[in-house]
Amino acid sequence: MEYTIEGRNAVIEAFRAGKPIDKLYILDGCNDGPVQTVKRMARKTDTIVRFVNKERLDALSQTGHHQGVIAQAAAYEYGTIEALFARAEKKGEDPFFILLDNIEDPHNLGAILRTANVSGAHGVIVPKNRSALLSQTVVRASAGAVNYTPVVKVTNLAKTIEELKKKGLWFVCADMTGEVVYETDLTGPIGLVIGSEGEGVGRLIREKCDHVCSVPMQGEISSLNASVAAGVMAFEIVRQRREAAKRRGSL
Amino acid sequence: MEYTIEGRNAVIEAFRAGKPIDKLYILDGCNDGPVQTVKRMARKTDTIVRFVNKERLDALSQTGHHQGVIAQAAAYEYGTIEALFARAEKKGEDPFFILLDNIEDPHNLGAILRTANVSGAHGVIVPKNRSALLSQTVVRASAGAVNYTPVVKVTNLAKTIEELKKKGLWFVCADMTGEVVYETDLTGPIGLVIGSEGEGVGRLIREKCDHVCSVPMQGEISSLNASVAAGVMAFEIVRQRREAAKRRGSL
Repeated sequence: MEYTIEGRNAVIEAFRAGKPIDKLYILDGCNDGPVQTVKRMARKTDTIVRFVNKERLDALSQTGHHQGVIAQAAAYEYGTIEALFARAEKKGEDPFFILLDNIEDPHNLGAILRTANVSGAHGVIVPKNRSALLSQTVVRASAGAVNYTPVVKVTNLAKTIEELKKKGLWFVCADMTGEVVYETDLTGPIGLVIGSEGEGVGRLIREKCDHVCSVPMQGEISSLNASVAAGVMAFEIVRQRREAAKRRGSL
Repeated sequence: MEYTIEGRNAVIEAFRAGKPIDKLYILDGCNDGPVQTVKRMARKTDTIVRFVNKERLDALSQTGHHQGVIAQAAAYEYGTIEALFARAEKKGEDPFFILLDNIEDPHNLGAILRTANVSGAHGVIVPKNRSALLSQTVVRASAGAVNYTPVVKVTNLAKTIEELKKKGLWFVCADMTGEVVYETDLTGPIGLVIGSEGEGVGRLIREKCDHVCSVPMQGEISSLNASVAAGVMAFEIVRQRREAAKRRGSL
């Protein structure tokens, strides 16, 4: 699903909002201030730019007011908490959400969205001000996962955890100081909280979690890449759920 | 451990060889062809460049023939298969090696080295012509793991697998078409083979493996980021080894 964003300011705004732009068409030879800003933003976000003539732009335009700049954007929409629960219910599964605190690296965010989809998590929750946006880089690194796995933006992650606890979820936080994840029961409705590599999960949020878990560390260094940590934890949840289903005889 | 590489051609060669360069000192104002090449390579590899005066360069020089260019390089050396076995023996553990086929993305290679260290793998084996080199980007993404976990470069990965099989290792290959990893016995001396995201593990190498394994796929997309896949598989080996040790009563 694609739509166009037309005009210099609209395109600049779209970049600022972190909207994933698939392709950018700029009038060949056009080089004034705003167009330079657009070009700079395109470079910064690795956006594909095509320089075209006026006829081509006019043909692409849906509004007739392109001012020499047209962006083609994919309509990735943020989801809602309700949609996450609906996804779990539809699949007849206990909710399994992944919450990200401080993940600012778009490659890590993309890889985590991919992991969320493959591991069957029903969605990903990110705080509005402390995470990467669904930019083009994220979308690309997610290898298509953004098209399926909803991403919910919330104002206050700690408050969201409180609300989700009331709905029956319990929370496990990935932190290298935690207990060994293999010895923790991860079945049931669960929220998995992943923090950034540098800072980890914020203190306030860690305190809200029921368990702090880690992989056993057997080497000299003491931290994994954030998306790898998320992957190992998410699939330990998958493994334990399978084991539990087997015990119940439903697998 | 640091050493200097001095002179234009030596530095250009070092960049070409993928040597990890920590810092580059260039004579301020020097702008001829080779120096421009050096600058371009530095930009390409995200190398820190300092423009300094002649006195500073002379002071840094160990050879007295710097020609306006001095690189400070870290002495990351490739390891040997023997060193990997020695590491396993020293720890009193069954060998656990990670073999990478086609991993060309330096961020993924760095993240995998990090995983190798934290998961207690005794080393990483890469084919000479089909993998990223230990460049500065890899070193940085490894978060220090390259200082501990040996990386061995081999000419022919398939031949190396044959040789390691004779030494008692058996091989498991991560591939989305494989059997569920949780249902495969991963204890004992093991080589874990990881392929690239696009092409996976080459056919010849996959055929040499005793098992082809995958995580259960529960979503719409069907592949994980290569470093995430490596992490999930490596820690499943860790988990099964812990379980086995518990059963033997040694944990």
